[in-house]
Amino acid sequence: MAQHIYDDPTFFEGYSRLPRSLDGLAGAGEWPRLQRLLPPMDGARVIDLGCGFGWFSRWARTAGAAEVLGIDLSTRMLQRAEHDTNDVGITYLQANLEHVELLPNSADLVYSSLTLHYLQDLPRLIAQIAAALVPGGVFVCSVEHPTYTAPSNAQWQRNANGSSVWPLDGYSREGVRVTDWLAPGVRKQHRTIETYVMALLGAGLRLTDLVEWSPTDADLVAHPEWDAERDRCPFLFLGAQRVSS
Amino acid sequence: MAQHIYDDPTFFEGYSRLPRSLDGLAGAGEWPRLQRLLPPMDGARVIDLGCGFGWFSRWARTAGAAEVLGIDLSTRMLQRAEHDTNDVGITYLQANLEHVELLPNSADLVYSSLTLHYLQDLPRLIAQIAAALVPGGVFVCSVEHPTYTAPSNAQWQRNANGSSVWPLDGYSREGVRVTDWLAPGVRKQHRTIETYVMALLGAGLRLTDLVEWSPTDADLVAHPEWDAERDRCPFLFLGAQRVSS
Repeated sequence: MAQHIYDDPTFFEGYSRLPRSLDGLAGAGEWPRLQRLLPPMDGARVIDLGCGFGWFSRWARTAGAAEVLGIDLSTRMLQRAEHDTNDVGITYLQANLEHVELLPNSADLVYSSLTLHYLQDLPRLIAQIAAALVPGGVFVCSVEHPTYTAPSNAQWQRNANGSSVWPLDGYSREGVRVTDWLAPGVRKQHRTIETYVMALLGAGLRLTDLVEWSPTDADLVAHPEWDAERDRCPFLFLGAQRVSS
Repeated sequence: MAQHIYDDPTFFEGYSRLPRSLDGLAGAGEWPRLQRLLPPMDGARVIDLGCGFGWFSRWARTAGAAEVLGIDLSTRMLQRAEHDTNDVGITYLQANLEHVELLPNSADLVYSSLTLHYLQDLPRLIAQIAAALVPGGVFVCSVEHPTYTAPSNAQWQRNANGSSVWPLDGYSREGVRVTDWLAPGVRKQHRTIETYVMALLGAGLRLTDLVEWSPTDADLVAHPEWDAERDRCPFLFLGAQRVSS
């Protein structure tokens, strides 16, 4: 990551109060769909890039993973992750994903939730991931969707007939976007779907899944306030496989 | 196609005056990039779905294709396509792509430019295409990008700071969109990138290219009025291959 925003006290305080921080995967609306991209976990060696509080790392172990390596840049998040487990099958490592070196042929699954949009150098990490996978191994990630990250002024507004619209601009202008989310001046990288997909294909991976997540009808019964998430897409999931050869 | 809009006199008149109708591929801003998705044409058997006036069908022959089958629903377009060639290597066929039956294992390349967003039943045609390809054969298509097709009111508007924005809504709500483009009441199908990509993967094809087209810097020198096309993406290209087995 290009910054230690998760170690910023204001940001960390706000992030710690999100449903996904308090309730883990059960508090992440996209998890039921994202989970369907995962391979069988039984006996799997897993790397969790941007592991945060370790919710996924712990879930992977309960789902049968043989071992999990969770990597994050944030001191505060790793401290809590360490505190929240005594599972010797989980190892946490503090590292910057811009520079991390992953052990080749070491993972059946590399997973990364809502992390890659903080990275400046995507191709470098994707090459590391592709090499870290064993043949047949799987990479699954979620990122903020480009319709969500693109706007220069990311605030819902009204259109001519009075309904709520998302003011899309700059879709094809990739690069830094600065937003006030939990703390002022949070920096993210806006990228197109093309850039994400071609990075995977360029590393020799085969694309197996592309999901533009939006809430289901059942989700909206429980969370009517999520309806706007059907107007612009909040999350992109990608699944890819290292081809057996 | 669900309608004969290209045979509507008003629509046909307007469409016939577009640069891409008058100047063919040279008048289509996206063609230089789309062309890069094509396989070597030498000796190729080509199917051109939604061939229109036959610009691509004729180009394919000049680029070395052995034979081209151009298919379209529009009587008027095919009349002009027939009129504009005497090449016995090109065959034009009038058919509805909702119901067309393609000969299995008959094509090295299936190509479709700006046509699939008129179709109601995408998976049926994709299955036809996958079966029509020989092993190693390639499918290349362009469609209107979902950020372009999604809005309920597809008109540029101003945002709070006065700049021009595209009023995105309904991104995840697929289905018919009615716009006034060249003629009133043109019906298109809005689909997400997920739906297009998963249709290809679901038919057993391997994704090789995903391009969200926007003008290059050189394009903008020649056509400064295209700058807005970087705010919302106008075209999506997909390339896929039938895996040799």
